[in-house]
Amino acid sequence: MTLDSINFWLAIIATVAFAVTAVLAIADRGVDIFGVLVLGVITAVGGGTVRDIILDVPIFWANDLVFVRVAAFASLLAFLARKFFTQPQIFALMIYLDGLGAALFGMNGALKTWELDFAWPLGPVILGVITAIGGGIIRDVMVGRKTLIMSTEVYAIPVLLGSVLMIALMHFFPDHKGAVLVFCTLFSFSMRAAAIHWDWQMPAVLVTKSRKSWSD
Amino acid sequence: MTLDSINFWLAIIATVAFAVTAVLAIADRGVDIFGVLVLGVITAVGGGTVRDIILDVPIFWANDLVFVRVAAFASLLAFLARKFFTQPQIFALMIYLDGLGAALFGMNGALKTWELDFAWPLGPVILGVITAIGGGIIRDVMVGRKTLIMSTEVYAIPVLLGSVLMIALMHFFPDHKGAVLVFCTLFSFSMRAAAIHWDWQMPAVLVTKSRKSWSD
Amino acid sequence: MTLDSINFWLAIIATVAFAVTAVLAIADRGVDIFGVLVLGVITAVGGGTVRDIILDVPIFWANDLVFVRVAAFASLLAFLARKFFTQPQIFALMIYLDGLGAALFGMNGALKTWELDFAWPLGPVILGVITAIGGGIIRDVMVGRKTLIMSTEVYAIPVLLGSVLMIALMHFFPDHKGAVLVFCTLFSFSMRAAAIHWDWQMPAVLVTKSRKSWSD
Repeated sequence: MTLDSINFWLAIIATVAFAVTAVLAIADRGVDIFGVLVLGVITAVGGGTVRDIILDVPIFWANDLVFVRVAAFASLLAFLARKFFTQPQIFALMIYLDGLGAALFGMNGALKTWELDFAWPLGPVILGVITAIGGGIIRDVMVGRKTLIMSTEVYAIPVLLGSVLMIALMHFFPDHKGAVLVFCTLFSFSMRAAAIHWDWQMPAVLVTKSRKSWSD
Repeated sequence: MTLDSINFWLAIIATVAFAVTAVLAIADRGVDIFGVLVLGVITAVGGGTVRDIILDVPIFWANDLVFVRVAAFASLLAFLARKFFTQPQIFALMIYLDGLGAALFGMNGALKTWELDFAWPLGPVILGVITAIGGGIIRDVMVGRKTLIMSTEVYAIPVLLGSVLMIALMHFFPDHKGAVLVFCTLFSFSMRAAAIHWDWQMPAVLVTKSRKSWSD
Repeated sequence: MTLDSINFWLAIIATVAFAVTAVLAIADRGVDIFGVLVLGVITAVGGGTVRDIILDVPIFWANDLVFVRVAAFASLLAFLARKFFTQPQIFALMIYLDGLGAALFGMNGALKTWELDFAWPLGPVILGVITAIGGGIIRDVMVGRKTLIMSTEVYAIPVLLGSVLMIALMHFFPDHKGAVLVFCTLFSFSMRAAAIHWDWQMPAVLVTKSRKSWSD
């Protein structure tokens, strides 16, 4: 298998994970099947859509609907098989795959931005993070959930650091795009996996003191 | 009257209905006249704006401000004449006109997307739905209301099914655009009108069980 | 100093004020340093980003990251020096500078839209207001705060009136762009400063009666 095809199949798996975890995250709110479909698809492709609007390039799903189809299918599957996916081990697997997805989408987003030479060096970092977490934020806003940005979970930081690492490595090894992509994705995913495994939270000194609680 | 001029005048009526129902929906929150203006206009033109950004074509109101003007005027009118519009019969009429607007905006959005050959076949369906409900969702998010997507009302489904019907009919009758547009709009509106009249809700089997209630 | 360089340095000050007031506004919610960074930058550059997407021109920060850098730096500074910035006099200064920023960003946004001849005459007014308040609205939505649009504070009205004044003056004095920009910015800021100083609220007759309160 070539790097491109590995990247493609990993992105398919990541899309499934994003859609499934999205559905599981909102299932306790009384959402109908149409809402599930919309929110699952938005979570999976929303970040890349915002990225492409900012880059002013054609939306990535416009010329190939496979990611929309996969996200729609996975959302419906997650709706129908909620009991299966909420089993502790399956759910845990999904959380790790979602982390893989964030790393993969983030690094691919950063690389795409780098290749378009958009707002170097901060552009690839900003749009890498938007690619990874934008869809989930739109979902949470539409659902009325506390968004990721208000959580102290270590979720976006691995994408941020992975993107920074990527622009540094691409600067020194511009001819080894594939290797840099793989390395940064593994780096970002490893950090997220560690954060899941050990339940890392941001240290209190890096968090403002809360005097208001979210109604959630 | 030609089909284009009928379509135009129906769109004007729909714009009024969108703006008026928007103002009535948020009036119980203590919104000032500036907020009323902004939210009425966003509800009426927001969905088409998001559609045109995704299509990467000029925003539909940029070259002809008539829809913005009508929405602004209708919003101010609804603010001043809240008592008139909240009379049961007038309010019911507005709800039906709002349903006509959703059908009309949705089908015109789907057709525009089809004509641009954008992401066929799912593109016209996705952007038809966004055209119809996007503005209302942005309004609800800005107001802090429960969005349409979290409701089990049958509101977006008629637009979704109408858009699917449209791409099917356009496939077989590409030379009868006008007839297809009229037929799908009537189909979509009829379904929405039935949903209003008989207060259809999504059947419980198609809704996840709620364990959290929205603070609203 | 030329007008352009004065405009530039004022925009830098305004960016700092937007980022700092953003951080102070959300600090009581328990946000981590990543959230602070994201929300500070979005508040400062979000409105201009939405404006440029609607105008379909390159995002203003893509070719010059100085505003993103300044916003990021100011956000981190505000996070670290929260105690300093929440002193009554410093905080009051920040509120006035934020008002200067809204006037400045709004008038520059209206002027940019006017120069592109986009949707004259409402386009410059709409996009002037979006430039000034768009970033703050995105921030509040992501944070789950009551948005500006639901407040009866006199914040957006000075930008709206300043933009209207600008298109009127540009119509009559198309050759005096600089003077018009300065005059409208001063007009808009003066009105906002008066609103802060005397705590102006929209008169009750221009506000719908609230029957629901925001959970905030």
